Amino acid sequence: MNFTKLNPQILAEIKSILGENAVFTDAESLDNYSHDETEDLRYQPEVVVKPKTTAEVSALLKLCNGYGIPVTPRGGGTGLSGAALPIYGGVSLSMEKFKAIIEIDTENLQATVEPGVITEEFINAVAEQGLLYPVDPSSKGSCFIGGNVAHGSGGPRVVKYGTIREYILNLEVVLPNGEVIWTGANTLKYASGYNLTQLMIGSEGTLAVVTKIVTKLLPKPQNSVLMMGSFSTNEEACAAVSAIFRAGVTPSALEFMERKGVEWVIKYDDIKFDLKDDVKALLMIEFDGDDLDDIFKNCEKTNIVLEDHKCTEVLFADSSAQKEELWRMRRTMAESVKSNSVYKEEDTVVPRAALPELINGIKEIGAKYGFESVCYGHAGDGNLHVNIIKAGMSDDDWKNKLKFGITEIFELTRDLGGTLSGEHGIGLVQKDYMPIKYSEIHLNLMRGIKQVFDPKGILNPGKMIPDLK
Amino acid sequence: MNFTKLNPQILAEIKSILGENAVFTDAESLDNYSHDETEDLRYQPEVVVKPKTTAEVSALLKLCNGYGIPVTPRGGGTGLSGAALPIYGGVSLSMEKFKAIIEIDTENLQATVEPGVITEEFINAVAEQGLLYPVDPSSKGSCFIGGNVAHGSGGPRVVKYGTIREYILNLEVVLPNGEVIWTGANTLKYASGYNLTQLMIGSEGTLAVVTKIVTKLLPKPQNSVLMMGSFSTNEEACAAVSAIFRAGVTPSALEFMERKGVEWVIKYDDIKFDLKDDVKALLMIEFDGDDLDDIFKNCEKTNIVLEDHKCTEVLFADSSAQKEELWRMRRTMAESVKSNSVYKEEDTVVPRAALPELINGIKEIGAKYGFESVCYGHAGDGNLHVNIIKAGMSDDDWKNKLKFGITEIFELTRDLGGTLSGEHGIGLVQKDYMPIKYSEIHLNLMRGIKQVFDPKGILNPGKMIPDLK
Repeated sequence: MNFTKLNPQILAEIKSILGENAVFTDAESLDNYSHDETEDLRYQPEVVVKPKTTAEVSALLKLCNGYGIPVTPRGGGTGLSGAALPIYGGVSLSMEKFKAIIEIDTENLQATVEPGVITEEFINAVAEQGLLYPVDPSSKGSCFIGGNVAHGSGGPRVVKYGTIREYILNLEVVLPNGEVIWTGANTLKYASGYNLTQLMIGSEGTLAVVTKIVTKLLPKPQNSVLMMGSFSTNEEACAAVSAIFRAGVTPSALEFMERKGVEWVIKYDDIKFDLKDDVKALLMIEFDGDDLDDIFKNCEKTNIVLEDHKCTEVLFADSSAQKEELWRMRRTMAESVKSNSVYKEEDTVVPRAALPELINGIKEIGAKYGFESVCYGHAGDGNLHVNIIKAGMSDDDWKNKLKFGITEIFELTRDLGGTLSGEHGIGLVQKDYMPIKYSEIHLNLMRGIKQVFDPKGILNPGKMIPDLK
Repeated sequence: MNFTKLNPQILAEIKSILGENAVFTDAESLDNYSHDETEDLRYQPEVVVKPKTTAEVSALLKLCNGYGIPVTPRGGGTGLSGAALPIYGGVSLSMEKFKAIIEIDTENLQATVEPGVITEEFINAVAEQGLLYPVDPSSKGSCFIGGNVAHGSGGPRVVKYGTIREYILNLEVVLPNGEVIWTGANTLKYASGYNLTQLMIGSEGTLAVVTKIVTKLLPKPQNSVLMMGSFSTNEEACAAVSAIFRAGVTPSALEFMERKGVEWVIKYDDIKFDLKDDVKALLMIEFDGDDLDDIFKNCEKTNIVLEDHKCTEVLFADSSAQKEELWRMRRTMAESVKSNSVYKEEDTVVPRAALPELINGIKEIGAKYGFESVCYGHAGDGNLHVNIIKAGMSDDDWKNKLKFGITEIFELTRDLGGTLSGEHGIGLVQKDYMPIKYSEIHLNLMRGIKQVFDPKGILNPGKMIPDLK
C-alpha cells in the first residue's frame, strides 16, 4: 500500500480540526494505542486522535482521504483479531470520547448511543429502566458498543436473543470522504433498498466510522436460574448441547468449558468452585423469563437430557452471588489462559450438532502438530473458542508449523458447515485464512464493496480481506 | 437502458440450456407473467423460463449477461411493489420449479429449501417436526420463500420473532455472470467478512438469483391465545400499541385494523364477526408459548392496558376455529380492499409510539388531496399498510395529483423516524420516492453495490434504486 506519511504540516491541520488536546504524538500514547488484546502484536500509529463530534470525525476523514493517510478506528481495544492495529501507521482514531447515552426511549423500546459507550454501562443504564440489551460479550466491562457493531459481537445470550445484528436498527456513519449518512431508519422492519446497516455490522471499520447507534431494547426478564452440568468427556458434554434444544427448550445461555480452562481460571481469579477429579468438561445453562415456574419446568426438561448424556453432577445456582461467581469463572477464562501460556485464539463456529466432531478433530490436529488446546465458548451457538497453547512446542514450530495446524482446523470447521469466526472477526490475524472458506469470486465481491465505500483504501487498510493475488 | 432484444438464435440457445419444455413464448404465458399483485400494472417479458437446477440458472444468466438481455427473477407473483415486473422485457425467470424442501435438520434446528417452496408449505412441513418457522406474510398460501428473502419479508409474528432477516443463515446464489457462491455459513453467528447473506436479503433480485436457502428454526410453542380489542377511535387503538410493550409483555402478533377494512372483509370473505356500531378500530393481539398459565398472565396484563386506553370490548379466542376465523379476516383484508376500489398501497413503517401521529397525519393528507384511505397492518412493529382508495377522486387527480399526497405521506413517515417500506419493498412503484428518505450520497452507495454484483445491469433492471440524476 502506498500511503502518505504524516508531516508537521498535516499534523498542524489535524490539530486545527480537533484541537491540540485531542491529538497525541508522545511515545507513551503511541505505545498505548499500538496493541489491542490480540496475542502480543504491536504496530505503532503515527498519531492518536480523540475527536468528540461527528463533525470532527468528518473533517478528519476528509483530510486524511485527501492526503492518502491511513485511518484505523479503535473502540475499547479489547479486540481478539487485531482489527484495531494501525499496521500501516497513520492515524489511530480512538472513539473513546463518544461516551453519551443520548436517549433511552421507553416508549419505543429503543436507545440512541455513541460508539464509545462501554457495553456494560449501557446494559446497566437500560436495566434501570426495566429494559434489556442482551448483547454482552465477555469483555463487556471494557469493550465499546461501537466495537461490538464493528465485529458483529455476540456473547452468551446469543443462543436465545441473537447477536448484535438483531439489535442495531440504524447507524450514523462517516464515510471515508467525510460525508455523513444514517444507514437506515429507527424501525423494527426495513425493506427500503440495500440494507447498509447490516452491511456495516461486522465490517470491522473498513467501510465507514460509526458515530451514533440506534438499538432495539426488550422488556427485561424478571428471573433467571443457572445450572452447571459436569461431564467426564468433552464429547458427551458437546453432544448434550443440541439435545437440549431438541427437547424443546431454549436456554438464555449455554456455555461449554474444558477442564484445563476451569482449573486455570479457578487459580487465576480465585473462583469458588469444587471441580471434581473425574470432570473433563462443564456446561453452564441459564434460563431466563418472568415466570419462575416456567423457568423450573425448562430446568427439569434439561435435567432429563443431561442425565441421558451421562452428566455426572448438576448444580443449580439461583442466588445472585452464586450466579455471579459462575459467570465470573466463564468470563475470566480468556484472561486466565493468556496469563498461563503463549497462545493463539481461534473463534470457530459450526452448526451446533457438529460440536463433538469439531472438538475431537481439534484434538487430533493438535496431536498431529504437537500443540495442546483449551476450548470453551458459546456451545449453544456452535461457537467454540479454541485457545492453542504453545506449551512444549518449539519456537520454530510455533512460528513456522502452527499455521498448517490452524489451516486444518479451519478446513474442518468449513467442512462441518461452519466458518472462521463467529464473533471475534477476521481482522489481521485470520485474514490470510479467508481463502480456506471463500473463493476468489466471493472475495472479489468483498473487495468491490470496499472499493465503493473507500475508493482510496484509507480506512483500516490491510484488514479482513486478503490482498488480491 | 440499452438492452439486447431476444431473437430466434438466442431463443434457441436458451432452449438448448433449459430444454424446450421450460421455455415459453406463447401469448398466454407472456400475459400470465406480465403482472404480480401490484395494482393493475402489466409489462410483458419476451420469454418466460422455468429452470430446475442451479446449473441451469447459471448457464442462463451467463448467456443473458453475455448478450445484455434483462432478466427479472420471479417468485410466487404476490409482490406488492412491482419488483417482479419485467419492465424492459427480456427474460421472466420463474423459480416455480425450485420446489424441494431439501432437508429439515432436527439436530441443528435448520432447514435447507429451494426458493420456489410456498411459504405455508414450508411452515407446515417444519411444524410436523415440532418446529417453528415464524415468517408468515399474509400471502403465505401462495408466496415463495425465495420472494420472501428478496423482500426481507415480515408478517404478523415479526413483533416477537423478527423478520426473515433473522432466520436466513446462508444462501446459494447465482451471480449475473453465472458464477455460483454460498453467501455465508450454516451458523447462528457470523463474523467473517462483509455479510453477503444480509446484503442479499431485501435486495429484490437485483444482485443475484437465490437458488438454495438455509434457515434457522425454533421449537414450536405449544399454545396460543388471541385477543381482539375494540376501540372507538383509531388514535386510541394506536396509542395502546406501545403501551402494551411498556407493560413488559411481548405479544407474538399485534395487528391494527381500521373499521372500513373490517366491514369490507366481512362482506368479501363472509367472516363471522360481530362488528359493533361504535367501533372504529380493532387490535388483534396474540400470545404464544408452552405454558398456558404464563400466556394468561400476559393476557391479563394486556387487558389492563386495553382498559386504560378506552377499549370498549375485548374478545378472547382460544379455540382453533375462532382463532383461524379472526386470522382469516386479517389475512384477506388486502384482497377485500382490492376488490372494492381502485387503490394504491403504501407500506409505511415508523417507531411504534409514532403510530397515532402517523395515522392522524395520513387522514389529514387525505383530506387535503381528496382521497380516502383504509389502514391496517403490523402495528406492533410500527408497520402500517396504507390503502389509498380512489373513491370520489377524479381520474385526472388520481393520475397527476395523488403522487404529491403520497410524497407527503412518506415525508411524514421519514420525519417520524421511519422509512418507505417495512416489508413490501421498493420495487418499481416506490422507486421514485426513494430520494425523500435517502440522499444522493446514500443512493450512490447502493448504485455502487449494484455495479459490483451486476456490472452490465441485466438483473431486474429499473427497480429499487432511482436512476442517476
